[in-house]
Amino acid sequence: MKKFFEQSPAIRWKDDRLELLDQRILPARHEFLPLDDVESVADAIKDMVVRGAPAIGITAAYGVVLAARKRYAESPENWTQLINNDLECLAASRPTAVNLFWAIENMRKAIDGYQGGDPVPALLELAMKIHEDDIQANRTMGEYGADLIVQHCRDRGIERCSVLTHCNAGALATGGYGTALGVIRSAYARGIIDHVYADETRPWLQGARLTAWELLQDDIPVTLLADGACAHLMKQQKIDWVIVGSDRIAGNGDVANKIGTYTTAVAAHHHDVQFMVVAPTSTIDMSLMDGDDIPIESRQSDEILYVSGYRVAADGAEAWNPVFDVTPAKLVSAIVTENGVVQAPDAEKMANLMC
Amino acid sequence: MKKFFEQSPAIRWKDDRLELLDQRILPARHEFLPLDDVESVADAIKDMVVRGAPAIGITAAYGVVLAARKRYAESPENWTQLINNDLECLAASRPTAVNLFWAIENMRKAIDGYQGGDPVPALLELAMKIHEDDIQANRTMGEYGADLIVQHCRDRGIERCSVLTHCNAGALATGGYGTALGVIRSAYARGIIDHVYADETRPWLQGARLTAWELLQDDIPVTLLADGACAHLMKQQKIDWVIVGSDRIAGNGDVANKIGTYTTAVAAHHHDVQFMVVAPTSTIDMSLMDGDDIPIESRQSDEILYVSGYRVAADGAEAWNPVFDVTPAKLVSAIVTENGVVQAPDAEKMANLMC
Repeated sequence: MKKFFEQSPAIRWKDDRLELLDQRILPARHEFLPLDDVESVADAIKDMVVRGAPAIGITAAYGVVLAARKRYAESPENWTQLINNDLECLAASRPTAVNLFWAIENMRKAIDGYQGGDPVPALLELAMKIHEDDIQANRTMGEYGADLIVQHCRDRGIERCSVLTHCNAGALATGGYGTALGVIRSAYARGIIDHVYADETRPWLQGARLTAWELLQDDIPVTLLADGACAHLMKQQKIDWVIVGSDRIAGNGDVANKIGTYTTAVAAHHHDVQFMVVAPTSTIDMSLMDGDDIPIESRQSDEILYVSGYRVAADGAEAWNPVFDVTPAKLVSAIVTENGVVQAPDAEKMANLMC
Repeated sequence: MKKFFEQSPAIRWKDDRLELLDQRILPARHEFLPLDDVESVADAIKDMVVRGAPAIGITAAYGVVLAARKRYAESPENWTQLINNDLECLAASRPTAVNLFWAIENMRKAIDGYQGGDPVPALLELAMKIHEDDIQANRTMGEYGADLIVQHCRDRGIERCSVLTHCNAGALATGGYGTALGVIRSAYARGIIDHVYADETRPWLQGARLTAWELLQDDIPVTLLADGACAHLMKQQKIDWVIVGSDRIAGNGDVANKIGTYTTAVAAHHHDVQFMVVAPTSTIDMSLMDGDDIPIESRQSDEILYVSGYRVAADGAEAWNPVFDVTPAKLVSAIVTENGVVQAPDAEKMANLMC
């Protein structure tokens, strides 16, 4: 049986346009949103039709293709200048995931090297390569991460590990297969996963809505819990690994990821639970010394004040809604990338990885 | 202007029956549920019409009055035997909050000393005394807790503290005024509170639905956050104190409270934030050596899988829903009771407090 992440990617180029699985309405409805122009792509990123750092980058790359098609039709002479506005529009859609800027930069380099003629085929090929490379990177990371779990089992003389994940770092958040969920998929296939727990991940409920749905599509059982229950889970049940993705990793190994990740990392540290971050090198921002410089997006307070469209908080209540946090490198056991694993990350090891 | 907790208690004896403010539908609707018999009272506790350890105890005390009235009418000779079933029914309503058993035990002692005649006036008087004593205890604890905050400000040379609370340990959870929110009320009145943050407190959203509503009724500004954001809050904003209530405190100072409290305590410990537990001595269970023996209620997984009546998780997903956790005494800076404050609690200090 073909697995979900193979038969149904969340991002696809079809009939000369981009289609995104609308993640705002999952798992209740499974609908693709067709996008014909770059403004719609930027809005889709902003409104979280698509989310997850690698998926945002891939989406933006396809957005550049749509922009190039329109600008080239407008002006075959000046399209490489006209498209700058579109690239800025895409770059302004969300601030934290560095993969967005990485993908735009990759596409820009191709535009800078433009030699004449219709630019769309070459740009589309590059966007597809970014997409396919991401899937391949996820499969590689899946094996690297599973190797870490195997080693952990060996060191402790146990057969299987139980894992906790936060948010959704799966096929839905990437080109396919997933980062954190890629490791969980690979490890589950090897028979070394005892149980998968998933934080529901307020306020957007990516864990409840997306991770549970995605894992169940692949027949991997999953148990949800309230985010606040993570420390109690670690104390009561045997949790060996917390496994998460990332939206940006600084040069010293500090990790920005979905709000709540840092709380989970502190709880893991307190309970001597291993903490694995799985992210392609496109997530690593060597221009930043540490996590203090990572811009943290705040979204509207309504995400806290309303649940499922229903006002839960009293009128007059305010909410603080940063949607990412930073886990310092010292709380991270390993960063898994497609180019290798960095255990107990620091600036020197990160530089060695990226050189 | 009269404050909310004075003009509108959540538990009241009116027209010879018990009325409970229905906390399941707050803050959208403000309705009292009238209760005439003990079975309805047990159901109201079970279904969380009323919640919060002291409030559950007070409600049960009034429930015993209703039971006595019915049993005495049935059989003036045998009512003290017949009522045993009712006491058991009440005691079976929820397992964790020890105030429930404490209140039933107090009422049972009065029944054991029955001297003849209509027992209702004396039992009602006792239930009202339990209710009034709780309010008085809260006011006393409010001052003790505020004294701790004053001392903290003095020691650090600051004027005001910012505080974070979890769940609702307010007027709604007690006879009135509140435990944790009682301290916040008293400290706010003294002008030493800079800002109040409240975890939304999944899955039941007591923070968003109840704490925000209750504080805003008293014109105390409050900012909600996702539970998972607590560590990021402590790192980004200056948080001086976490202040919570409790459902049961073991003989060594281990504290059972709403799920998520332990995670918040671990985060507080990591960030050198003070952790204050505010609970009347009726919450202390000296029969238990430590928190491992506190029974932790698990509620139905639908509380996680559905939000506001809307299914959020994929079909087939399971949920783990323990609704309390235990914070070990070593993470607690102070336990504030009406009989005094225990700093850095341990078995010896708890025994001294309770002797």
